[in-house]
Amino acid sequence: MKKISILGSTGSIGVNTLDLIGRFPDRFQVVGLVAGSNHRLLDQQIKKFRPRVVSLSCDGKEAALVQKKWKRAGVEVLIGMEGASSVASLPETDLVVSAIVGSAGLVPTLSAIQHHKNVALANKETMVIAGEIVCQEVKDRKVSLIPIDSEHSAIFQLLAEEPHGVVRRVILTGSGGPLYGYSKKRKESVTPDEALNHPTWKMGRKISIDSATLMNKGFEAMEARWLFNLPPEKIEVLIHRQSIVHSMVEFVDRSMVAQMGLPDMRVPISYALHYPERATLPFPSLALEEIGALTFERPDLKAYPLLLYAYELMKAGGTYPAVLNAANEIAVSAFLSEKISFPKIEKVIRKTVSAHTASPIKTVEEVLEADRWGREMAEKHVKSIS
Amino acid sequence: MKKISILGSTGSIGVNTLDLIGRFPDRFQVVGLVAGSNHRLLDQQIKKFRPRVVSLSCDGKEAALVQKKWKRAGVEVLIGMEGASSVASLPETDLVVSAIVGSAGLVPTLSAIQHHKNVALANKETMVIAGEIVCQEVKDRKVSLIPIDSEHSAIFQLLAEEPHGVVRRVILTGSGGPLYGYSKKRKESVTPDEALNHPTWKMGRKISIDSATLMNKGFEAMEARWLFNLPPEKIEVLIHRQSIVHSMVEFVDRSMVAQMGLPDMRVPISYALHYPERATLPFPSLALEEIGALTFERPDLKAYPLLLYAYELMKAGGTYPAVLNAANEIAVSAFLSEKISFPKIEKVIRKTVSAHTASPIKTVEEVLEADRWGREMAEKHVKSIS
Repeated sequence: MKKISILGSTGSIGVNTLDLIGRFPDRFQVVGLVAGSNHRLLDQQIKKFRPRVVSLSCDGKEAALVQKKWKRAGVEVLIGMEGASSVASLPETDLVVSAIVGSAGLVPTLSAIQHHKNVALANKETMVIAGEIVCQEVKDRKVSLIPIDSEHSAIFQLLAEEPHGVVRRVILTGSGGPLYGYSKKRKESVTPDEALNHPTWKMGRKISIDSATLMNKGFEAMEARWLFNLPPEKIEVLIHRQSIVHSMVEFVDRSMVAQMGLPDMRVPISYALHYPERATLPFPSLALEEIGALTFERPDLKAYPLLLYAYELMKAGGTYPAVLNAANEIAVSAFLSEKISFPKIEKVIRKTVSAHTASPIKTVEEVLEADRWGREMAEKHVKSIS
Repeated sequence: MKKISILGSTGSIGVNTLDLIGRFPDRFQVVGLVAGSNHRLLDQQIKKFRPRVVSLSCDGKEAALVQKKWKRAGVEVLIGMEGASSVASLPETDLVVSAIVGSAGLVPTLSAIQHHKNVALANKETMVIAGEIVCQEVKDRKVSLIPIDSEHSAIFQLLAEEPHGVVRRVILTGSGGPLYGYSKKRKESVTPDEALNHPTWKMGRKISIDSATLMNKGFEAMEARWLFNLPPEKIEVLIHRQSIVHSMVEFVDRSMVAQMGLPDMRVPISYALHYPERATLPFPSLALEEIGALTFERPDLKAYPLLLYAYELMKAGGTYPAVLNAANEIAVSAFLSEKISFPKIEKVIRKTVSAHTASPIKTVEEVLEADRWGREMAEKHVKSIS
């Protein structure tokens, strides 16, 4: 019986993870759940999966009421970032699913690793802003860090037992997002709903917008850099509209391997949950003969300027990725609440990052400080623009 | 230093193998070479690679002259099937590349395995006609059998360390060959040159015709059955005109993996030579963005009736595959020497196989007897047709 805690149980990855766990009651037991503000959904999850401990990030009046109910039912109830870190480090947990969105995932994820938990990682920002620190901790504590992002799960599956030196390059694939082919002019009047309407993947709101700007691929490149210990120049991006090939690896002997499947996050989540085994899932099989053609093209860097920018900042390193990520979180949030237009996401980010003086990262505190600085600065720019 | 012997050194696979060995003089040493009748090319190979022993299958006047020369140069010279088996079992050999075309490859390949040699297998007929026996020997002698066929190399690479039970199905890809899309009527007047003009792969003559009839995929399915211990219903075939995806595996969790590359037999040969390592090769990289689209479709079983027939006989088992293979070798040879038309290949095969009373296989002798019977019978049908 594998004992699981989920950080971000009411988000898209959390819900899918619980869907899978519910299919294998003999294999998994839910120990802890961490949610944001969706206490109604958390309430349902508690009823169904009976965790020992839960943590909520917000503490409103209504939330306080349900919390009382949970406590009466014998559930330990914690609050906020500290609560999340406590759930991440519960002594009985074997595997922590890290699926909080944004840099808020860093501290609890690190807490899990430091308490010798294996981690299934969906929170890519953790690697973007503090990849080097996280990887060192993973190494020191001898735990497994299994990616959930479809691209990184693909590469993880493909590399399996291959020795590190044989990788010539990895190719991250991206659909191009919901605004693929839009002119610059048309992007000016894009609504949040339009930008959220992803053609192939059903994902959370923030990641859907990152997919529309292709910032997502920039972050994924950073994540791949640390997860697979690769220099930036060995990480490429191709646009693949069908989202069937989730990523590829080319070896030094020019043999290339690809991992594929219908776009369903439950497949990479299942891989991470069952790792190192594979479970039989009853989902539809990929029938390539029905899809017909898989297409590939280089990304148009003029249409996706943030991708190129992310690569520059990945190479520059230090606190740059943390500030980039912070500015992006603020800018995307401002776009989603209709404070700024779609093209202004880039503007807020560039203004924030270019005002930053980067420094090398040695501690988590330095990362969090850069994150705070980036958020504050980006908020200012949002205000001055909107 | 890995010591290599090559069975079939003057054929397409043999020549490519030596090309690769020549690029890694510190890693490989050629110990033995077996050729058919091309003593001129063998002479060049002897000069360049200095094997200790060679064997030729034919013994004409001119051949006798060069053989004298080789003997004077200190090379041990053997003849015929026995010579081939001796080269396959030289005590100092680490790896035998089995690349003789047709059922003639069986006895020397088995000899190599029985003498505890690892085998890089290009001779698929060995597995088609005697797969069960060969696999048992491989298990008993604890040697590695590494496929060279691009499809099987693909699957071998993809399965790597995956446990056997997680494979849901394998998908062999085929280009559809040079006569893809030809009408029944047009196939009646196809010339050998036309049928040899493969769109994507440069291969030997016999295998090119097998690719035009798709018999090749039937044989590959049989090979996959034994190599990967899979029931026939888990082995599928898709037409993939670009020959970029060399084959695919779907796991029980619906994750699918594919191995890809530009069509160059040196990549799978290199994999087999260097296994379990990968060597850096200076060949062009696959640029999917230049290829644009990869297409997949179900094979039209009316256009390729021999594929369906091969599956039927795979399921029927026993001596059927040996007789099918024998009849195919004779029929293809008759077509190549313009004794019969292209559609008559199928006719010769069906007539031969349907006259056969199959029996289970326990010994190599039974396989060889079925092979002999099939050849004789097929020769008769060729004569009666032409």
